[in-house]
Amino acid sequence: MKIILIGAGRLATHLGTALNSAGHDILQVYSRTMASAETLAQQVNAEAVTTLDDVVTTADVYICAVTDAVLPTLIPTLCKGREDALFLHTAGSMPLDVFQDKARHYGVLYPMQTFSKERQLDFSEIPVFIEADCAETLTVVSSLANSVSRHVMSLSSEARRHLHLSAVFACNFANHCYALAADVLAAHDIPFETLLPLIDETASKVHELSPREAQTGPAVRYDENVIRRQAGMLDGLSKEIYELMSKSIHEHSNQ
Amino acid sequence: MKIILIGAGRLATHLGTALNSAGHDILQVYSRTMASAETLAQQVNAEAVTTLDDVVTTADVYICAVTDAVLPTLIPTLCKGREDALFLHTAGSMPLDVFQDKARHYGVLYPMQTFSKERQLDFSEIPVFIEADCAETLTVVSSLANSVSRHVMSLSSEARRHLHLSAVFACNFANHCYALAADVLAAHDIPFETLLPLIDETASKVHELSPREAQTGPAVRYDENVIRRQAGMLDGLSKEIYELMSKSIHEHSNQ
Repeated sequence: MKIILIGAGRLATHLGTALNSAGHDILQVYSRTMASAETLAQQVNAEAVTTLDDVVTTADVYICAVTDAVLPTLIPTLCKGREDALFLHTAGSMPLDVFQDKARHYGVLYPMQTFSKERQLDFSEIPVFIEADCAETLTVVSSLANSVSRHVMSLSSEARRHLHLSAVFACNFANHCYALAADVLAAHDIPFETLLPLIDETASKVHELSPREAQTGPAVRYDENVIRRQAGMLDGLSKEIYELMSKSIHEHSNQ
Repeated sequence: MKIILIGAGRLATHLGTALNSAGHDILQVYSRTMASAETLAQQVNAEAVTTLDDVVTTADVYICAVTDAVLPTLIPTLCKGREDALFLHTAGSMPLDVFQDKARHYGVLYPMQTFSKERQLDFSEIPVFIEADCAETLTVVSSLANSVSRHVMSLSSEARRHLHLSAVFACNFANHCYALAADVLAAHDIPFETLLPLIDETASKVHELSPREAQTGPAVRYDENVIRRQAGMLDGLSKEIYELMSKSIHEHSNQ
């Protein structure tokens, strides 16, 4: 398919290179900054553009891989004059109907993963959640998604926004727990790498056990001495997080 | 070495079976409940005992692998009449000097991992942190630790209690983030397994990037619309955790 990428961030980069490798023809990459547009455009053999006026009208699919907040203003401008094309966004927490009355054919293609430019990923292993305005469009979106991922599932906007919320907990908040651990270690000159076997096993365990069954440590034992001592070693938001998480773990263990 | 295991919980089970496999002679397993003592005793070819009076005085090493809170009352009784033996505990957040004036030779052997009875682990890959009353004892503890792990490091009580605190964040709190994610999904009949590729990549990323560099999502972008909408989908402690973690991620990104 002939594709235009709107956005040149991390998600656009990983998705764009996967689409390019799958044999699709990326015509253009749009970004407000030329450097970003050019970096990705070079990787996917596309033209870099920095104004929507320069985006051609001849593509089959326009994929909006931009920050959620930008979509409502971007979409009307982008869709205008391109009535026969298919428009997609890639946002977990934005509903499908952000395209309503702006485009005739539209859908969502949400790859649920944490993307960094420095990391190579096997896109085919990433779960991709799709949705579309009608069954016919869904077939097209499904075909596009299946060309890059082996794990494509159809999901409503309502279910997707809950999935995205769960991803914030399982990824962003879990990673922030690593960051808070790194702060504690850095203050005592212990290398962060020391924690990697523990971090890996914590992630591996929930392949076999539910997170509730997998839980260990002072909070689930409700070892009040340790909890009080450890809270006393912290201050500011870290201390508040320690106390709130311990309370929540204890509450969960009693459910 | 001739070893007595005081405790038959998860840590005692993993450490005991590793010591047994390494060729040490586990004489007895002590636990207050006979069923627990017997389960582990059978696995390590030892005798099960349920009172400290029945613990023999002929062992080289007594390893206390019990809840932190139990140590201060257990240690005086255990050490009495066994003056020439070596006494160890396995607790991350308990200092070495819990043995002071109770035993002549003592130390700490802290394997930093999350132990569940259901999971098989390669003990040789677990980082073990050791400490002892003197250089001579440290040599013995080091030899014992090296017989079961390839990653033995000497660490002071003060550094170890910070290491243990960091482990609570990186393991227990990260796992609780998985549990909160599971709650959100369960309420919408989405299987938890959907999150596993994301959980695995989040853990893998911090092998290459620092947690701060690895962070993604609405909080680090400070996408206030998404943060407000997602907080509104939660209640109780989960909502408080969502708001506090988002605030802390944002604070970290500006440091």
